[in-house]
Amino acid sequence: MTKVLMKGNEALGEAAIRAGCVHFFGYPITPQTEVPEYLVKRLPEVDGVFMQAESEVASINMIYGAAGVGVKCLTSSSSPGISLMAEGMSYIAACELPCVVINIMRAGPGLGGILPAQSDYFQATRGHGHGDYEVIVLAPSSVQEAVDLMTLAFELAEKYRNPVMVCADGMIGQMMEPVEFPTEGRGEPLKDNDWALTGCEGRKRRIVNSLYLSPEENHQHNVRLREKYERICAAEKRSELYNAEDGYDLLLIGFGTMARICKSAIDELKREGLNVALFRPITLNPFPFEACRAAMDATGKVLDVEMSMGQMIYDVKLAAEGTKEIEFFGTAGGIVPSPDEVAAKVREVLAVETA
Amino acid sequence: MTKVLMKGNEALGEAAIRAGCVHFFGYPITPQTEVPEYLVKRLPEVDGVFMQAESEVASINMIYGAAGVGVKCLTSSSSPGISLMAEGMSYIAACELPCVVINIMRAGPGLGGILPAQSDYFQATRGHGHGDYEVIVLAPSSVQEAVDLMTLAFELAEKYRNPVMVCADGMIGQMMEPVEFPTEGRGEPLKDNDWALTGCEGRKRRIVNSLYLSPEENHQHNVRLREKYERICAAEKRSELYNAEDGYDLLLIGFGTMARICKSAIDELKREGLNVALFRPITLNPFPFEACRAAMDATGKVLDVEMSMGQMIYDVKLAAEGTKEIEFFGTAGGIVPSPDEVAAKVREVLAVETA
Amino acid sequence: MTKVLMKGNEALGEAAIRAGCVHFFGYPITPQTEVPEYLVKRLPEVDGVFMQAESEVASINMIYGAAGVGVKCLTSSSSPGISLMAEGMSYIAACELPCVVINIMRAGPGLGGILPAQSDYFQATRGHGHGDYEVIVLAPSSVQEAVDLMTLAFELAEKYRNPVMVCADGMIGQMMEPVEFPTEGRGEPLKDNDWALTGCEGRKRRIVNSLYLSPEENHQHNVRLREKYERICAAEKRSELYNAEDGYDLLLIGFGTMARICKSAIDELKREGLNVALFRPITLNPFPFEACRAAMDATGKVLDVEMSMGQMIYDVKLAAEGTKEIEFFGTAGGIVPSPDEVAAKVREVLAVETA
Amino acid sequence: MTKVLMKGNEALGEAAIRAGCVHFFGYPITPQTEVPEYLVKRLPEVDGVFMQAESEVASINMIYGAAGVGVKCLTSSSSPGISLMAEGMSYIAACELPCVVINIMRAGPGLGGILPAQSDYFQATRGHGHGDYEVIVLAPSSVQEAVDLMTLAFELAEKYRNPVMVCADGMIGQMMEPVEFPTEGRGEPLKDNDWALTGCEGRKRRIVNSLYLSPEENHQHNVRLREKYERICAAEKRSELYNAEDGYDLLLIGFGTMARICKSAIDELKREGLNVALFRPITLNPFPFEACRAAMDATGKVLDVEMSMGQMIYDVKLAAEGTKEIEFFGTAGGIVPSPDEVAAKVREVLAVETA
Repeated sequence: MTKVLMKGNEALGEAAIRAGCVHFFGYPITPQTEVPEYLVKRLPEVDGVFMQAESEVASINMIYGAAGVGVKCLTSSSSPGISLMAEGMSYIAACELPCVVINIMRAGPGLGGILPAQSDYFQATRGHGHGDYEVIVLAPSSVQEAVDLMTLAFELAEKYRNPVMVCADGMIGQMMEPVEFPTEGRGEPLKDNDWALTGCEGRKRRIVNSLYLSPEENHQHNVRLREKYERICAAEKRSELYNAEDGYDLLLIGFGTMARICKSAIDELKREGLNVALFRPITLNPFPFEACRAAMDATGKVLDVEMSMGQMIYDVKLAAEGTKEIEFFGTAGGIVPSPDEVAAKVREVLAVETA
Repeated sequence: MTKVLMKGNEALGEAAIRAGCVHFFGYPITPQTEVPEYLVKRLPEVDGVFMQAESEVASINMIYGAAGVGVKCLTSSSSPGISLMAEGMSYIAACELPCVVINIMRAGPGLGGILPAQSDYFQATRGHGHGDYEVIVLAPSSVQEAVDLMTLAFELAEKYRNPVMVCADGMIGQMMEPVEFPTEGRGEPLKDNDWALTGCEGRKRRIVNSLYLSPEENHQHNVRLREKYERICAAEKRSELYNAEDGYDLLLIGFGTMARICKSAIDELKREGLNVALFRPITLNPFPFEACRAAMDATGKVLDVEMSMGQMIYDVKLAAEGTKEIEFFGTAGGIVPSPDEVAAKVREVLAVETA
Repeated sequence: MTKVLMKGNEALGEAAIRAGCVHFFGYPITPQTEVPEYLVKRLPEVDGVFMQAESEVASINMIYGAAGVGVKCLTSSSSPGISLMAEGMSYIAACELPCVVINIMRAGPGLGGILPAQSDYFQATRGHGHGDYEVIVLAPSSVQEAVDLMTLAFELAEKYRNPVMVCADGMIGQMMEPVEFPTEGRGEPLKDNDWALTGCEGRKRRIVNSLYLSPEENHQHNVRLREKYERICAAEKRSELYNAEDGYDLLLIGFGTMARICKSAIDELKREGLNVALFRPITLNPFPFEACRAAMDATGKVLDVEMSMGQMIYDVKLAAEGTKEIEFFGTAGGIVPSPDEVAAKVREVLAVETA
Repeated sequence: MTKVLMKGNEALGEAAIRAGCVHFFGYPITPQTEVPEYLVKRLPEVDGVFMQAESEVASINMIYGAAGVGVKCLTSSSSPGISLMAEGMSYIAACELPCVVINIMRAGPGLGGILPAQSDYFQATRGHGHGDYEVIVLAPSSVQEAVDLMTLAFELAEKYRNPVMVCADGMIGQMMEPVEFPTEGRGEPLKDNDWALTGCEGRKRRIVNSLYLSPEENHQHNVRLREKYERICAAEKRSELYNAEDGYDLLLIGFGTMARICKSAIDELKREGLNVALFRPITLNPFPFEACRAAMDATGKVLDVEMSMGQMIYDVKLAAEGTKEIEFFGTAGGIVPSPDEVAAKVREVLAVETA
């Protein structure tokens, strides 16, 4: 396998095709437009379907339809567009249909700006749409990982019949890095299954439905969804611990682009003799509470860093269960902190203690 | 002041008018349709505007417009319809416009069912729309309280220039109770202010905007929004503690309809000699963490009860900070537990300990 | 009564209010935007309703609804927007509901341009929507006549329970002329009637419907519509004959702005000793065939002039029944011919004969 | 070539594919739904694109887009749906783009009914959309002819870069007849051309546009459209004369299903010794005025028969130029007259004269 130099957004598109997804429905919005731009050219080459919908409400409902007939399908948007998908996401999750949704997060709220942000963490991991349902959320912090997690996203979507969201930001979407794709050819299409609406000639009719007029049936359906989520929690939590081998005086917690910057800050601090580790959740939902707690237990100081006013910190606090005070460093509006700024904040936090 | 017998949904509508709100935009959905049905008749009597929009996406954007010109305005929907408002809510909060949104929650996810539920707690309190913003969320547990909280909702919306959501469910929406309204006449319309788009003849042009192309400005805007939320947290947390006067062996935590049922269960258990208290958050956002913690500190056992698979429990755990194991009893699908069922669960939890 | 100086589009709006119409639904499009602009300011002063719809498809369906509840209602648009109303017009006519539609025609086809044209004659008088139905079409050629025909439009709409279209163009819409309004105050609202959906408490339910599953009933319904049209034809044809007192060598036929220009050309030609008359249909539908024929019978030469490639000429030929060859002079694209150009064409036609 | 037994609507779909059209966009409506039903199955077999749009407004705009990129494309609807296409048709014609539109006419106006009718004659041949443009309209009267005219429709659309409408009704759409298709294989795709938007790498950018801000340019554009229509009039008029060999006492004029019934009536009358001919326009636009006039000139009596309240009769009168009084027999509401009823009307008309 050879590496090719690609922009993050394009690599996401190519990875979807390699995973066997040739159905894309979406609507343009900066800073994710390179995803559809790439796919509108590539999909015809693989007999795929690219459709620009009339809005994001339409995109997600096209995904609902495509997923219901059993094809691997993808939509992509950025923060305001993802908001418009809230109802559809709830429907798709309720119907237990597999699909992958990319959110190249931008600064909010409202129109906000087009620069990178991580302020859709709450939306991705909690309460976007109505009702009890869960979306698996994956957060890459490099172009290569974006490719790898796209592959995983389609696997998990199919395995659990559940929407999977890949949350990145404009930084990862726009940067170019050498990547290699897991397979040279195209992935398998969605395997034969016993639920998709593929035409019922010669077999019993199947139904894709989220309406349960009997409360008891609806309750049972929700219990099943919850049990599925518990299986996901048991099997699919992913995280990375960086620079933890030799103990550490402070634990940074960050994801995606922010984690990448933390690593540079850690390397910088190391040269000064300060030992700092990073805990990076790769699955934002399910959040790796246990691994996070273990990483926190090994040190006295914890600094949660986010490109938001503080959203993941709620999960970090749930992991800490009061055993640690969690320091916070956040930016908003599309400001990406430099490694120097993170390092400065680390020194400040450590100074407080040693003072 | 005299009491009148009214259905919850109708009382919500009347309370809005008494609060000085005569602009309603919405779209029908069970089980909240009595709100617009009431208002479509009442609003013309007070020279008000009632508009059925073409969808909930339109409703919330009409609210965006109406709020922007400085009139008190209301929309109402139920779970799937509220999902469609995610983008608009983010815009309205970003632009710091006052408005009130009623969510008569129904069973989800997807179409779900039309029976009462509390499974939009996450959506109401976290991550509905994109970006860092907060919505004040009020949860009545009786028709009278629905009236009182509607009055408060308009006050808070105006005071903080922020969307306020009143979260109830079909139980409260459909039940009839005697209520009295805070004032006999109509409330004041939105006071003169220095931000609304009222026509700029003879004064400087005003701008309602959520787009900040400068990341630094957008960051500052987010910092201001966060500071506003901190002021809200400091001043507006509301909760009720029930049957706590003489100590208690177990603390129930529930809101809205569920809290009402808990009170009946508590009265039933009291007759058996079991002393159980209830902590009821009235503001779901900001969640009354401190009062909740204090109520938990006074007992050994905590049972969180929700008409969902467990959403508020995340906030309860944040309040507990690991000091308590939180037991959970939840239903989904529109099943409203009886006081007997809650009492049985309480006995079970207590029995486990005494066993 | 005193005259006021007003723009045509504004005068149309004021005339509607004077006729008792206080319900307007529309969508902006040049060159008719002054109609809604005027009404959005004026209607609140008379407790009226102004609604900007989300599209012209929505506007005409709002008119359908408003007409169905028995209020005088108005929409206004220009050529492409009128096209979007085709389905709704057919429904309204089928349901025999009164309403008034203004078309400030612009150059077509497609986007065309925003300058004046008469190329929606076919659309106004034939086959806009599907099925057998007729729309009464009135064509003013001055601002004062625009006011007078608006008054008439509401009378005819109510009298025949039928849509009435007022067809003008940007020339009349934009020009300022002194006008007087027929009454100082507001006209009467739509009288009590036995068909409107006004709430059926205490009386039999009424139905507004265009669906007839029985072909025999639908046939009878169409026969009734046709008989109504025949009554309209018998009673409502209106036209003007200009400069016909002393005989004429050539008859110009034109409507609206074109007729106005013809009059100037006629005055110019008169000074040269050429006697030319003008036949001007005021009702484009029903077309005044008999008066047109009589005017043609009195001369040897007929010149049909239109700001289109030739549409009314089909009706002129139907009137002529082969007794005359009809010469044609037309422009398209928003070109308004000058009186000189018309006069030159008249001389050319007459020269051909006298040569 | 062998004949296959097919329903009219399905044969229309197959004929489109044989003509090389593999792009279909539409929205379901009775009685044309078999067209999309057939194509949704067949198009994937030939690597075609079938898209159900969200409305007929969307369908025709998708056609606008597809035609603009130079692929043969088809939409299909029935009367109310066709009305919604008025604006789009004007745009497509203005941009001189080729496309084919099927209208399986149903009873109107408004919702009307789902039974066969011919009451969209005006709409098809005049003034559907705004501005000066013309649509070529073809009217088959058998399933075989439907196939043949579909083939012709695509040829004419491409030859003249103009929309072509195939107007049939539920009778032809639903009946089964043996048909043979002109070629066994698929027709040619749209030939290389110098106007379609196919990506401009390596060549000059092309523009598809209907907006002309210069009135002079727009005028010239309209003159070109008119000259094109004149070429169409000169070359493409088609009609059939039936049973005219031995002279006739009365000329029936009818199209489509009505013409077919006339032929049966004629055969019946022949057995009684009455010689009646039929003139059947195959192109409704351009109407074959000259052939129609010639057929009328050969007899004393003319009876125009339509499944409407009388629309084509305007063109018949234009052809007659006052030389004949045109008798009329029409039905509405979906009533298809029997040959007996037509024969009775013929006897009545002839009796009047011989009495």
